[in-house]
Amino acid sequence: MTEYLDFARELADAAAAAAMPHFRTRIAVENKEQGAYDPVTIADRAAERAMRDMIHARYPEHGIVGEEEGIHQGSSPYHWVLDPVDGTRSFICGLPLWGTLIALNDGRRPVAGAMYQPFTREFYAGTPDGSWLNGERLRTRPCADLAQARVMTTAPELFRVPAQRAAWDALAADAQLVRFGADCYAYCMLAAGHIDAVVEAGLKPFDIQALIPIIEGAGGIVTSWDGGDAQHGGTILACGDPALHAHLVERLRSVAN
Amino acid sequence: MTEYLDFARELADAAAAAAMPHFRTRIAVENKEQGAYDPVTIADRAAERAMRDMIHARYPEHGIVGEEEGIHQGSSPYHWVLDPVDGTRSFICGLPLWGTLIALNDGRRPVAGAMYQPFTREFYAGTPDGSWLNGERLRTRPCADLAQARVMTTAPELFRVPAQRAAWDALAADAQLVRFGADCYAYCMLAAGHIDAVVEAGLKPFDIQALIPIIEGAGGIVTSWDGGDAQHGGTILACGDPALHAHLVERLRSVAN
Repeated sequence: MTEYLDFARELADAAAAAAMPHFRTRIAVENKEQGAYDPVTIADRAAERAMRDMIHARYPEHGIVGEEEGIHQGSSPYHWVLDPVDGTRSFICGLPLWGTLIALNDGRRPVAGAMYQPFTREFYAGTPDGSWLNGERLRTRPCADLAQARVMTTAPELFRVPAQRAAWDALAADAQLVRFGADCYAYCMLAAGHIDAVVEAGLKPFDIQALIPIIEGAGGIVTSWDGGDAQHGGTILACGDPALHAHLVERLRSVAN
Repeated sequence: MTEYLDFARELADAAAAAAMPHFRTRIAVENKEQGAYDPVTIADRAAERAMRDMIHARYPEHGIVGEEEGIHQGSSPYHWVLDPVDGTRSFICGLPLWGTLIALNDGRRPVAGAMYQPFTREFYAGTPDGSWLNGERLRTRPCADLAQARVMTTAPELFRVPAQRAAWDALAADAQLVRFGADCYAYCMLAAGHIDAVVEAGLKPFDIQALIPIIEGAGGIVTSWDGGDAQHGGTILACGDPALHAHLVERLRSVAN
């Protein structure tokens, strides 16, 4: 697993070399999707291309799933799941809360994951053996009670299904503190024991797979809102304390889909 | 003015030395206010104390207004307006979007301002002569049209007056992109030309005074929602482009108070 994490660090450095020249510059932003505003920058594309080239060269049998260029089917069940710039909106607003997400999936589940934020030079990594920030071990914090919990989500507008929005609003009202706007960075704060829960909806597999080993390696738990496998995206509930997770699944289960 | 900015940098370094040992550690968080959750950390208090001691020693005639210890009346109209940790919620969640705010007010208006984020080592400073990030000149970007604008606010819950919340919701719906959760950092992104507007309500004078020279020195404009003086806090509208500001004052004027 160390070999793969070392390689993930090489991928992250290459993605950063491609993306950072475009951070806090006045780049053109295109609309990928009509209607919804989904900015795709030169940085996204250049960073994913750099990582794909490296994976093809190093592990030609591995598959690749990337946000920008889609699926490359490998001859091995192993495949890399990439989001070159998770938090594109933070990126174009100049905020250092975006990250490059890199997961290695063995065909059943993500077995190694990394998040790299190159402006702050924070490399978060996780495997079944543990999780680390720049080599320093991470641990979630105990917090079983929602009334004592610090909860994050990217934005309340993420909850497009009215019943999900209502469930979020009720949960937010019962939490000690709610904070918006962090994408992948929020899950890393959870793994590091600074916050207690992240609640989101509408996620893609590449938004979450890299974060699963980081959260689990730190002692946390991440599932869909009904307690199912998180790797497919959709509704996501991550908690540092399994007792808080059990409580929140009870609250969210009925509106999980 | 250079003398004052140099001194502001010394204050910021002292505040950082007091606050950073408590960032991303598991410090006790108290409730300052019953009901509302308003965390005050050891970091806040230690950072303000360090800055007050330095101001008393260097400019004994100057007054001080600080978030934690309140008003010290000086013999001079000059007074320093301090928020040792603006964005306490970001601070306790581990996010590097808080900052130490330092303004020098000449008795009529803030004439020099600084924001320091010590984790990312970003020192934003402004005077009537210009604005800088770590010595590099800042300029707002042109953007007259709300449909093209990137808009930030700390959280929609900031708008407690229903008419203000409705005005925010309508404005957010018309903007190109909305992002939450940045406190003082959002105003610095505006000065640096990454975003176009910041819209907030319920601010205290120490939340905004340091940011006024930074925004204005970069070519932006910051007022209350009805176009009045921003230094007293309350509703705040900051724009990079004066034409966008004029448009938004028309939309927000009627619900400014």
